[in-house]
Amino acid sequence: MKVIIVGGVAGGASCAARLRRLDENAEILMVERGPYVSYANCGLPYYVGGVIKEEASLLVATAELFRDRFAIDVRTGCEATEILPGEKKVRLRDVKTGEVSEHSYDKLVLSPGAASIRPPLPGIDLPGIFHVRTVPDVRQIGEWIASRGAAGTAKPSAVVVGGGFIGLEMAENLIHRGFDVTVVEMAGQVLTPIDAEFAHLVQAHLEKHGAKLALNDGVAAFEPLDNGAIDVRTKSGKAHRAELVILAIGVRPQTVLAKTAGLEIGALGGIRTDGQMRTSDPDIFAVGDAIEVKDFVTGEWSLVALAGPANRQGRIAADVIAGRDARFRGTQGTAIVGLFGAAMAWTGVSEKTLKRLGDTDYEKLYMHLNSHAGYYPGAKLMALKVLFRKSDGRVLGAQAFGEDNVDKRISAFAMAIQMGATIHDLEEAELCYAPQFGSAKDPLNFAGMAAANTLSGDMPLVHWDTADTGFLLDVREAVEVAAQSVPGALHIPLNQLRARLGELPCDKEIHVICRSGQRSYIATRVLLQHGFKAKNISGGVLTRAMR
Amino acid sequence: MKVIIVGGVAGGASCAARLRRLDENAEILMVERGPYVSYANCGLPYYVGGVIKEEASLLVATAELFRDRFAIDVRTGCEATEILPGEKKVRLRDVKTGEVSEHSYDKLVLSPGAASIRPPLPGIDLPGIFHVRTVPDVRQIGEWIASRGAAGTAKPSAVVVGGGFIGLEMAENLIHRGFDVTVVEMAGQVLTPIDAEFAHLVQAHLEKHGAKLALNDGVAAFEPLDNGAIDVRTKSGKAHRAELVILAIGVRPQTVLAKTAGLEIGALGGIRTDGQMRTSDPDIFAVGDAIEVKDFVTGEWSLVALAGPANRQGRIAADVIAGRDARFRGTQGTAIVGLFGAAMAWTGVSEKTLKRLGDTDYEKLYMHLNSHAGYYPGAKLMALKVLFRKSDGRVLGAQAFGEDNVDKRISAFAMAIQMGATIHDLEEAELCYAPQFGSAKDPLNFAGMAAANTLSGDMPLVHWDTADTGFLLDVREAVEVAAQSVPGALHIPLNQLRARLGELPCDKEIHVICRSGQRSYIATRVLLQHGFKAKNISGGVLTRAMR
Repeated sequence: MKVIIVGGVAGGASCAARLRRLDENAEILMVERGPYVSYANCGLPYYVGGVIKEEASLLVATAELFRDRFAIDVRTGCEATEILPGEKKVRLRDVKTGEVSEHSYDKLVLSPGAASIRPPLPGIDLPGIFHVRTVPDVRQIGEWIASRGAAGTAKPSAVVVGGGFIGLEMAENLIHRGFDVTVVEMAGQVLTPIDAEFAHLVQAHLEKHGAKLALNDGVAAFEPLDNGAIDVRTKSGKAHRAELVILAIGVRPQTVLAKTAGLEIGALGGIRTDGQMRTSDPDIFAVGDAIEVKDFVTGEWSLVALAGPANRQGRIAADVIAGRDARFRGTQGTAIVGLFGAAMAWTGVSEKTLKRLGDTDYEKLYMHLNSHAGYYPGAKLMALKVLFRKSDGRVLGAQAFGEDNVDKRISAFAMAIQMGATIHDLEEAELCYAPQFGSAKDPLNFAGMAAANTLSGDMPLVHWDTADTGFLLDVREAVEVAAQSVPGALHIPLNQLRARLGELPCDKEIHVICRSGQRSYIATRVLLQHGFKAKNISGGVLTRAMR
Repeated sequence: MKVIIVGGVAGGASCAARLRRLDENAEILMVERGPYVSYANCGLPYYVGGVIKEEASLLVATAELFRDRFAIDVRTGCEATEILPGEKKVRLRDVKTGEVSEHSYDKLVLSPGAASIRPPLPGIDLPGIFHVRTVPDVRQIGEWIASRGAAGTAKPSAVVVGGGFIGLEMAENLIHRGFDVTVVEMAGQVLTPIDAEFAHLVQAHLEKHGAKLALNDGVAAFEPLDNGAIDVRTKSGKAHRAELVILAIGVRPQTVLAKTAGLEIGALGGIRTDGQMRTSDPDIFAVGDAIEVKDFVTGEWSLVALAGPANRQGRIAADVIAGRDARFRGTQGTAIVGLFGAAMAWTGVSEKTLKRLGDTDYEKLYMHLNSHAGYYPGAKLMALKVLFRKSDGRVLGAQAFGEDNVDKRISAFAMAIQMGATIHDLEEAELCYAPQFGSAKDPLNFAGMAAANTLSGDMPLVHWDTADTGFLLDVREAVEVAAQSVPGALHIPLNQLRARLGELPCDKEIHVICRSGQRSYIATRVLLQHGFKAKNISGGVLTRAMR
C-alpha cells in the first residue's frame, strides 16, 4: 500500500506517524511545501515575543526524525500541484527546482492547512507587513524588528490587523518587545467566537496592559512613509503609523488542490469529509484546518483551525486507512487564549450562536467566583457564563475569563459537555479541592446549583438588558452602593430585608441586585416566599460592568 | 416545622442556609459545640504556617451572619448530649454554664463531624502536643510557637504523627516556620489512599524539601525532657526530640449521639444514611464526616472526611426536609494535597483498592507528560497513572503528581469518571489548549490513546514488577543509557531498531524500555509487526524510579 500525505504539520504528521505504527509495510510519502514539518504553529507569537528563545524549540519533530524513526519518505520544499483521482496519481513540484514528478497512490491524505487571508488592499505588499503562519514568517519578523531596532526608533509602533487568537497573542508579544500596539478589527469585538460581554472583559484587560483597540474599523490601505514606516489607513479615515504590521485577519482553507480533484467543498469553503475523514473520493482523506467539521453541540458544519482536532483527525485517517474503525465525533470548539496573565477560555456553544440558530430553549447565567478559597491568599475573581437547555438541563456552553485557573474550569466543562452532562451533574461534580486549588463548592458546583435553582423556579433570573422592566432592589451594603450605585434602585441591605418588606411594591416584579448575584439570590428567595414577584439579576453589578 | 441542626461547620452550615432559602417559615436552630460556625478547616495548617495571616480569615461565615441574614437561631458553645427519638427531642448543654435544656424537633440533622484520633499513649497529654481540627487548636499552636520561639531554640524540632493530608500539610507549614520536621507514620507510606509508587514520589519530594520521614513506625510514648521539649519514642525504639508535636493520625466519626439515639452505625463506624441523607430514623438526617457514604466507583461504603461532599450532603438534607427530591450519588474520592509547590491529586479507585476487592478486570498505565507544550518555557513533568476496565474500557481511577496543573487534569478525570467515560472518550476529549496551558494532545488524550492501544492489542503492556520475565530491550539514546542504565537490557536506540532486528530473540517475549514509554511503544509496534513477541514497559525508567 502506498499512501501519500500532502502537508506535514499537525494533521499530516500525526497521520504519518500513526500510520507507520499501525503498518510497517506501507509505503508512506509525506510532502510539505514549507521547509519544516511538524512545527509548533501555536508557539510562533511567543517566539516573536522572546518568550520562546530558540527557533529550534519550534521544531517539534524534524524531517530526519520522520525518516529515521518512522521510515517515512519526507520531502520538504515540495508541493502537490494536482491530483488525478481517476488515475490515483498526484503531481508533485520541487519548490526550489520547479521539477514536477507524478506519483501514484493507493490512499491520499490532504492536510494542506489554511492560508492567512491577505486582502488585495493598496500597499499590502509593502515591506514590514507580515503574516504569522510559519517559522520563516516569524524569523522574518524577528529580523525586521532587529534591523529596525538598530535604526533607533525610541518607541516603535505596530499595527495588528485582526483581533482573533493570533492577533491578540501577537499584540501581547509585541508589547513585550516594546512596541506601541494598535489592534484594528473590523468587527465590533475581539475574539468573534465569544459573546460580546466577555469580549468586553478581554478588551478592557488588553487596554489596561497598553494595547490600543480600533474596533468596527477595517483597513483601507497601507501607505509607505518617508522613514520606511507605514501609515495604516482605515475605512473610518484614521491613520495608524506602524514600523511593523501583522496581518492576522483569519485563515481560509487551502482547497485549490481539492477543487482540482473535484472533491466536495462545503458551504463554508472547507473540504467535506465523513466521520472517518474520507472526502467525496473514497481513496482521498482530508484532515486539519482545510476541512469542515461538525460542531458536536449544534450539529452545524464549522471551520476550526486548531491543533487539537487536527491531530485527532490525522490519527483517525491513519486508523481508517489501516482498516480500523475510527470516527471523529466532531468538535465542541474548546479554546483558550492567554493574555497578560489572564486567560479567556470557552467550550461548547455561545449565546450568539444559539441566537443565530433561532434556538430559544436555553437559559444562561453569569457568576463571578473566586479561583480558589477566598481565605487562602491569591484568589482571583473569575467571570463565568454558562448556557444550558431549559427543557432538559443539558449543559450547552461555558465561557470564562480570569487570571487564575480558568483553563481548569473550562476543561472540566468541556469534559462535561462532551459526556452530555446536565446542570445536575455539575451540582454533584467532585473536583479537586484544597484551599489553594479550589473551593469546597467549585465554580462548576455553584454553576450547577444556580442553574438548577433557575430551572426549578426557585431562582427566576433576569438579565441586565431587561432589568429595568421591573422594580430595582439593591441589597448590597451601603458602602458598596456609595462606591457604585445603580440608578433607580431602592437600597435595602440584605440583612435588613425581612424587616423592611413593607417598603416594596406587591404589584410589580422586583429585580434584585447585588455584587455577584449571590446575596440577590438569597433576597429573591425571601421575597418569593413572602408573596412578592421577584427575580435575581444574574451576576449582579459585576455582570453589568461587562456590558 | 422545627429543625434542629447539630454541628455548624461545613455540612451543618450548608444545610441551615439552604433550608432557610427553601423555607422562610421553618424554625431553624443550629448548635455548635465549638466557638465558631462555618470556619475554614482546610485552611488551618496554612494559618499555622503564616500563609493565611489573619485568624479572622478562617471564619467563613459568623454566627451573626447566620442570625442576621438567614434568621437562624445559632448557639455556639452548645452541645447536644442526647437524642430522645421517641419524643423527637434533643437535650442541649451550654458548654460554659453546664445548663441543660430540652428541645423538640420535627426534623433533626446531625453534622457532628469527626474527632481527631487520640491514642491513649503515655504522655499524650503533655503540653506541646496538639491537634489541628479547630480554630482554637491552631491559635494554641501559634501561641505555643511564639512562646517557645521567645525561649530561643535556634532550630526547633517538630514531630508530626501521621502522614495523611493534614499531617503533610502541617509538615510543610512547620518547615516554613523554621522547624526541623519529622513525620512519624505507622504505615509503609504517606497518604494511604494512593498507590505506593505515587507515595514514593510524594515522599521523595517531602525529603527534598527538608522533611524527615519515619515510616513503618508508630509512636510508643511521649516523654517530657528537662528543657520542656518532648521525646517522641517510637515502637522501633527511636526517639525524636520535639518542641512541638502535631497529632494527625486521622479522624473518627463522632457517633456517640447517634448511638444514644439507636441509629444504625455502619461497619466502618460511621452513621448509615440512605441516598437522601436520612438515618435509620426517618426524622433524623446525618451529613458530613460522621457518616458513611457509598463509593460511586466501587459501590463500597466508605468514610470521606472532605469538605466538598459534606457541603453537598448538607444541601441535600435541606432539600429533602423541604420536600424536594434530592439524592447524594456517592463519592468518588477526589482529593488533592499541595506540598512545596507540587501537588498530588487523585480521583476514583486506586489499584490497591481494586486488589483488596479482588477485582482483576482492570489494566493500568503510567505516563510522564509535560504539563504544557514542551517548547513553551516552564513545562513540568507530571506522573500519571490511569486505571481502566479491561472488559469495557471504563475509566476507574487516576492519580497524578507534579508541579504544574495537576489539579486541572485530575478534575477533568473526575468529571470523566463521574459521567461514566471510557478511555475512548478520553481519546476524544477536547480540553483547553494553548502552549502555556496544555498540549495539542492533552495528557488525558494521551492516556486515552495509550489505553485504547492496550485494549486493542496494539500495545501490550508489562509493568516493572514482572518486567524481568522477558528479554529486556532498551531503545533510549546512548547518552541516556550512560546516565542511567537498566541492568541486563540490550541497548538498541529506537532509530536503529529496524536495521538491527537480527540481534533480537524470536522465541522470547521482548520487554521494551525507554524513558517514559513513548519510544518503547513505537519500538513495540515495530517488533510486533516483524513477528516478535513484544510488550511495552509502561512508563519506562521514569516509572521504575517510582518503585
